Amino acid sequence: MNFHILTLFPEMVMGGLSTSITGRAMEKGIISVEAVNIRDYSKDKHRHVDDAPYGGGAGMVMQPEPICDAYEDLCARTGRRPRVIYMTPQGRVFTQQIAEELAKEEELVFLCGHYEGIDERALELVATDYLSIGDYVLTGGELPAMVMIDCISRLVPGVLNNEVSAEVESFHDNLLEYPQYTRPEVFNGLAVPEVLLSGHHKNIEKWRREQSIKRTLERRPDLLEGANLSKKEQKYLEELIRERETGENEPDSH
Amino acid sequence: MNFHILTLFPEMVMGGLSTSITGRAMEKGIISVEAVNIRDYSKDKHRHVDDAPYGGGAGMVMQPEPICDAYEDLCARTGRRPRVIYMTPQGRVFTQQIAEELAKEEELVFLCGHYEGIDERALELVATDYLSIGDYVLTGGELPAMVMIDCISRLVPGVLNNEVSAEVESFHDNLLEYPQYTRPEVFNGLAVPEVLLSGHHKNIEKWRREQSIKRTLERRPDLLEGANLSKKEQKYLEELIRERETGENEPDSH
Repeated sequence: MNFHILTLFPEMVMGGLSTSITGRAMEKGIISVEAVNIRDYSKDKHRHVDDAPYGGGAGMVMQPEPICDAYEDLCARTGRRPRVIYMTPQGRVFTQQIAEELAKEEELVFLCGHYEGIDERALELVATDYLSIGDYVLTGGELPAMVMIDCISRLVPGVLNNEVSAEVESFHDNLLEYPQYTRPEVFNGLAVPEVLLSGHHKNIEKWRREQSIKRTLERRPDLLEGANLSKKEQKYLEELIRERETGENEPDSH
Repeated sequence: MNFHILTLFPEMVMGGLSTSITGRAMEKGIISVEAVNIRDYSKDKHRHVDDAPYGGGAGMVMQPEPICDAYEDLCARTGRRPRVIYMTPQGRVFTQQIAEELAKEEELVFLCGHYEGIDERALELVATDYLSIGDYVLTGGELPAMVMIDCISRLVPGVLNNEVSAEVESFHDNLLEYPQYTRPEVFNGLAVPEVLLSGHHKNIEKWRREQSIKRTLERRPDLLEGANLSKKEQKYLEELIRERETGENEPDSH
């Protein structure tokens, strides 16, 4: 899978993606990440890519021509017209489901805005998807592009290989992950839960499922509706809810 | 404001934050970003910081000792015990409101997990906030930490200075931003809306407000409830809704 990032800060995106799992996937040739410097497509002798907004107002707006030229050049090089994702707080909120859909593409382009935004005509001409990574305002589209590429890459076959598969992680079966422990057995007076040292696989499995259920109830109760619980687990959950209700009623009795 | 990132990939976070607005704020000394390499606190001669999980299972778990030692050292250096944010899809979802709250702190620590996670005891001992940037799974906590730092930095007084103030941007007044245009006047057959070239400020302001309302209705109708509209604007919105309803009914009549 090939990612192309149209940006004014190519060194920033390459630095942030060349480490760890995505970096190894790039080395192995499973994914490729290319940062295209929009400034290289400026026809201005000072390499300007932005100008004041028509109608007045603060800030600078990125001009349409260098962006469209960069995209057309990319199309000519790849022989395709790939989807172009524009990162904006106005877009549809990015989720794991959208990542799974995007992971099926062979080429993906990320257009990173900066300053006061991008000339609307550039978006009309090249952008196919408007996505937001969340309800908060950032300096530019570079970090959101890196976040999406990291998330999508992990779903490309071969990227996670011998490491944990993406499926058994967070959100699996609509339950949050159970707590993890490693050496030492006692740290700062805190001991690893005994069951994990017992070697009794069935008990360990039971304890972990119960911890997942408990944690999901505490932190993301909205997920529980879709969780696939055994009859015993369902009973455990009901008990937890009863306990919580009793606990939560206490302050009122003061 | 001082940001401290506890990570196994210090070069990644520094590279991603040293450009653009955050970079300039660092140069001016308004914010500082320090990446603390957790590996520097390993007492293992091979500098290991992770080990197999107790109870079995795939992957490696980050050990509690180097993390806690890195934090204690940071406290000794700064003379404080700052809040520690642990980035996890299990956390509360990060929003602009949370960013505003965190921007009031003088020191903030971001603890970046990797591999199968972090020994639960380290989290019990040092983590004060569990935050998620969205409902998707990433390789580690580094990108989420960079996203949060970028977002929080923009709210620190002096960071945006002569550039656009954070307030007049996206989400201002619960309306999305209007479309922006800059040179050339005609690009690829697409002309800049005439009103923007008129120099008639009142008309420009009216057009921009209407575009914001239209766009918010199309993309984020949930925001409109909190929007502060004049009577005329309210009427414009009602007209748009009526048009949409007529338009949306069309396919059914085929």
